[in-house]
Amino acid sequence: MSDANAHKVIDALPEPIPPPAAGNGESQVRGISSPGVSDIMRRWKREDLLKRGCLVLHGLALIFSLIAFIVMASNTHGDWKDFDRYEEYRYVLAIAILSSLYTGLQVLRQIHELSTGKESFSRPRLALVGFFGDQVIAYLLLSAASSAVPLTNRMRENNDNIFTDSSVAAISMEFLAFFALAVSALISGHKLSNKSYI
Amino acid sequence: MSDANAHKVIDALPEPIPPPAAGNGESQVRGISSPGVSDIMRRWKREDLLKRGCLVLHGLALIFSLIAFIVMASNTHGDWKDFDRYEEYRYVLAIAILSSLYTGLQVLRQIHELSTGKESFSRPRLALVGFFGDQVIAYLLLSAASSAVPLTNRMRENNDNIFTDSSVAAISMEFLAFFALAVSALISGHKLSNKSYI
Repeated sequence: MSDANAHKVIDALPEPIPPPAAGNGESQVRGISSPGVSDIMRRWKREDLLKRGCLVLHGLALIFSLIAFIVMASNTHGDWKDFDRYEEYRYVLAIAILSSLYTGLQVLRQIHELSTGKESFSRPRLALVGFFGDQVIAYLLLSAASSAVPLTNRMRENNDNIFTDSSVAAISMEFLAFFALAVSALISGHKLSNKSYI
Repeated sequence: MSDANAHKVIDALPEPIPPPAAGNGESQVRGISSPGVSDIMRRWKREDLLKRGCLVLHGLALIFSLIAFIVMASNTHGDWKDFDRYEEYRYVLAIAILSSLYTGLQVLRQIHELSTGKESFSRPRLALVGFFGDQVIAYLLLSAASSAVPLTNRMRENNDNIFTDSSVAAISMEFLAFFALAVSALISGHKLSNKSYI
C-alpha cells in the first residue's frame, strides 16, 4: 500500500483525537490512537503531587496524635486531677495511641515507597486499606474528641488548672489530627475511584 | 475513494477497540470509535442502581433523624429530667434538626428527579454539594451522638428512668443516621470522582 494513499484515507476518516503539534521533540510517534506524551506526563505529575500531599497529611496527623497521646498520658496530678478516673479521657488516650500507630505505619510505608520506588502490597488492596483506614480513624478521632469536650467544659466552669488545660490541649490535637486524616481520606478515595493506584 | 480501499487501510491500522460482535441487533453502527452499546447500557444500569441506593440511604437517614428529633424534643419531664438543662442534649437536638432538614431536601430533590427525569441544578455543582453535605452532616451526627454518650452513661449508673431511656433512644437514632449518611457519602464521592453526574 502506498504511503500517499494511506494518508488520503486517514484524512477522510473522522478525527476524534487532535493531531500532535508539529515541532514538539517528544511527540515523534505519530500514531492515531496515542493519547499524547504530555498528557501522560501531566497525569504522572498530578499523581506525584497527590502522593506527596498524602504523605504530608499523614505526617501531620502522626505529630498531632503523638502530642495528644503524650499530653494525655502525662496528665496525672493526683486526687480528682487524674485522667484515669474519667472514661472520656481514657477514650481520648486510646484513640490517640491507635491513631499514632496507624499514621506511623502509613508514613513509614510511604517514605519506603518514595525512596525505593517499589510498592510493598498489591495496589488495589493498598488503596482500599488506605481509604478505609483513614476514614475510620478520622471518625474515631472525632468521636473521642467530641465525647471529652462537655466534661472539660464543666470542669473549667469551676476551676482552671493544669489538669483541665492539658485535657484541652490533648482534645485540640485530636481535632487537628482528625482534620488532617479527613482530607487524606478524601485524597485516598479519589485515588481509589480513579483506579490510579500509583 | 473506493470502499474496498478504505477497508484495506482500516485493517492495516492498529486496533485499540475490539470490533462489535456480529449478529447483535442493537450494534448496527459500526463506527471505529464506538465503545459498544452494551457497555453503555451496563453503565446506565449501574448508575441507576447507585441513584436508587442513594435515595434509600437518604430516606433512612431522614427517618432516623426525625425520630431522634421528636424523641429528644419531647424529652421534658420536669426538674433535672429536662433535656434543655444539658448542653450535650441541646447539641443532639440541634444536629437532629439540621440533619432532618438536609436529608429531607435531598430526598425531595431525588424523588423529583426520578419522577420527572430532569436535573434541577448543574450536575458537577450538585455532586459536590451532595458529597460535602453528606460528609459534613455525617461528621456532625457522629460528634453530637458521641458527646452525649458519657453524660447518659453517668446518669444511668444512678437511676434508670424514662428520661435516660429517651436520651439513649435519640442518641442511637443519631448513630444510625450517621451510618446511613457515611455510606451515602461514599457513593457520592464515587460518583464525583468518576465524573458520572447522572
